Amino acid sequence: MTKHRTTRRGFLKTTIATGGALAAAGTARAAGDPAITEVQPWAQYLGDGVDARPYGTPSEYEAHVVRRNVPWLTADPVSSVNFTPLHELDGIITPNGLCFERHHAGIAELDPAAYRLMINGLVDRELVFTLDDLMRFPRENHVYFLECAANTGMEWRGAQLNGCQFTHGMIHNVMYTGIKLGHILAEAGVKTEGKWLLAEGADASAMTRSIPMEKALDDCLVAFKMNGEALRPEQGYPVRLVVPGWEGNMWVKWLRRLEIGDQPWHHREETSKYTDLLADGKARRFTWEMDAKSVITNPSPQAPIGHGPGPTVLTGVAWSGRGTIPRVDVSLDGGANWQAARMDGPSLPKSMHRFYYEFDWDGSPLLLQSRAHDSTGYVQPTKDALRAVRGENSIYHNNGIQTWAINEEGVAENVEVS
Amino acid sequence: MTKHRTTRRGFLKTTIATGGALAAAGTARAAGDPAITEVQPWAQYLGDGVDARPYGTPSEYEAHVVRRNVPWLTADPVSSVNFTPLHELDGIITPNGLCFERHHAGIAELDPAAYRLMINGLVDRELVFTLDDLMRFPRENHVYFLECAANTGMEWRGAQLNGCQFTHGMIHNVMYTGIKLGHILAEAGVKTEGKWLLAEGADASAMTRSIPMEKALDDCLVAFKMNGEALRPEQGYPVRLVVPGWEGNMWVKWLRRLEIGDQPWHHREETSKYTDLLADGKARRFTWEMDAKSVITNPSPQAPIGHGPGPTVLTGVAWSGRGTIPRVDVSLDGGANWQAARMDGPSLPKSMHRFYYEFDWDGSPLLLQSRAHDSTGYVQPTKDALRAVRGENSIYHNNGIQTWAINEEGVAENVEVS
Repeated sequence: MTKHRTTRRGFLKTTIATGGALAAAGTARAAGDPAITEVQPWAQYLGDGVDARPYGTPSEYEAHVVRRNVPWLTADPVSSVNFTPLHELDGIITPNGLCFERHHAGIAELDPAAYRLMINGLVDRELVFTLDDLMRFPRENHVYFLECAANTGMEWRGAQLNGCQFTHGMIHNVMYTGIKLGHILAEAGVKTEGKWLLAEGADASAMTRSIPMEKALDDCLVAFKMNGEALRPEQGYPVRLVVPGWEGNMWVKWLRRLEIGDQPWHHREETSKYTDLLADGKARRFTWEMDAKSVITNPSPQAPIGHGPGPTVLTGVAWSGRGTIPRVDVSLDGGANWQAARMDGPSLPKSMHRFYYEFDWDGSPLLLQSRAHDSTGYVQPTKDALRAVRGENSIYHNNGIQTWAINEEGVAENVEVS
Repeated sequence: MTKHRTTRRGFLKTTIATGGALAAAGTARAAGDPAITEVQPWAQYLGDGVDARPYGTPSEYEAHVVRRNVPWLTADPVSSVNFTPLHELDGIITPNGLCFERHHAGIAELDPAAYRLMINGLVDRELVFTLDDLMRFPRENHVYFLECAANTGMEWRGAQLNGCQFTHGMIHNVMYTGIKLGHILAEAGVKTEGKWLLAEGADASAMTRSIPMEKALDDCLVAFKMNGEALRPEQGYPVRLVVPGWEGNMWVKWLRRLEIGDQPWHHREETSKYTDLLADGKARRFTWEMDAKSVITNPSPQAPIGHGPGPTVLTGVAWSGRGTIPRVDVSLDGGANWQAARMDGPSLPKSMHRFYYEFDWDGSPLLLQSRAHDSTGYVQPTKDALRAVRGENSIYHNNGIQTWAINEEGVAENVEVS
């Protein structure tokens, strides 16, 4: 399969060489195509005006582009998850309507006028803020990925789910507007012995997580906008915690209370859940940071190659909780040979990155893989390498390399290679 | 008003000094606030689950955050405009549902399966591409603003509209995924004498604009995604032209044809419309580039200061068709004194930039202004300076400095100062 090996110069050559193929396809269609020879219907009517949709919605032809849940996964949809359709997206921004959801007691519908944020515990002044109070603090804007610790969790024991939406779709990437948590804590005055923060949600699950003060003061945000507009209800409207690079469960939604303490609280979501059960029965706790990871989104099981041999675009996303992604490698032969993908779009820390690899498909079967390198030098491992260290008991923190098998028809399947 | 003058060091001092005021507000509320002393309703029920909204929508409490049209502005909503609610947004991304609309024959609802892009004229090979054909070209991702040439056009003859949504809301800022126009033109092979491009839309208005080949080959994109998902119908689904930094009318939606010629076509939208009529009756043509511009979005007429004296956040957006915005100045006294605002978020060429200015409001009236500097050294002019050169006949390309008068109650009004 070394014929797929492509260098930077090789890519440019490929683009030029494949011109003929694309042009030929175009020309062939030009002759008797009714889409060209007849006046198309949409050129014959006046469409909806500017008063039709004060808040816009996608085209009816995109009705299949939705978050999808897996009904058998949980006992009830109020404590469950749905998945971002990564195979239908491009670039690095996840539109708000397609950001995956994870609830523990359903979506709380808070009245912003009644919203309060309380700070108590080891502080000089216990405080309560309204939303208007929060609007008086300096704001920042950052694009961050949010990944559930259980993303790809079903794959620990082998290839399970046929589509990157289901294997990798518990992630989204959004520009947040918020206040540095440190600004708010400074108002209350954290006592010297205050080393931990408990963040609590206002929903019926009263989600609580312990966060070390060092992280709280580093880059955490108390956020109220996503991609420019108010947080969506399912993402914590009107206020959520943003814990950049760390597992999604810590990004407490509907944030109602911040308590300062001198040690962690060891609540349910950091003991029986969101800990990594190893082969010997011990559990790793406080494994907050999300390791570097990537996945090829196209082609993939939900998005087969829809054309025959010739110029083909492979694309995917990569991210790391520790920084940026300067490089992603792609293999077409199950990891025997690797080529550097083309990174594209803004490279921002703790944000999704987009990669592309353009190649001339010869129509033979492929075993597609991607491998992320992050700015600390860490390289995404194989699933087998992860299993050798952690066993198969956990459902969390699986950042192993994903493989899609492509057959002669361009159909993709989730497989394991070793 | 020199008491408002703030340096970088001054800003930090202000933040610390105002801590007391914010903390005091918080403490006062803590005592008998039912939002604290009673269990809030949303902690007492299980909300909607992950199956409730496959494609998400905003909170019902945000129902006022919508695009708004001005019914008296045009004879019919099918050839009209609505406006982005800039005063409700933060950061730099405009969510797709709130991107302003401008149609000339309403929204064409194209079937993507029947979509075709034709290239004809001075080319080696006339070509027709399907959407699937286009997906085989290399893609790029860029965040660009799109501003209508008529944005702020009503203000040429003095303060007219009370709100930045209406004075400045014919702009949005989106991450596009698309193909460099140059890649597609290379497939057809542009002949040596091909110096101009005609872009034509598929809607009933058959919008057409002439674009010089130099721009077409520089940074124009044939785009199919906005903020990650498919283009919205009102933004040209499935394919639009992206002409970075140039007036929005050239960003042809529902793109159906690219013709190569040796001179411009002088169609309606580049002669009787989208030209700048000067005081002497002459019209400037081909004034494509959007000059550096800024506006304060909060406080503003639709978003008054909702609190009394004390810590206050001023924010706004700035952009330039010629590059980045390294600096925005803010005046609280109608241009007598200027302070550098704090720039925040990614600084990307031909993209919106976000600025903030935090200050301690003493409760006295203010005359707020912002002034953008772009990366070429150009400085946003006053409206009077523009009028001195261009008169008041045009409705296009008004990038003059905007003034909001704030009274003792924090209420804002659109005013002119000279």
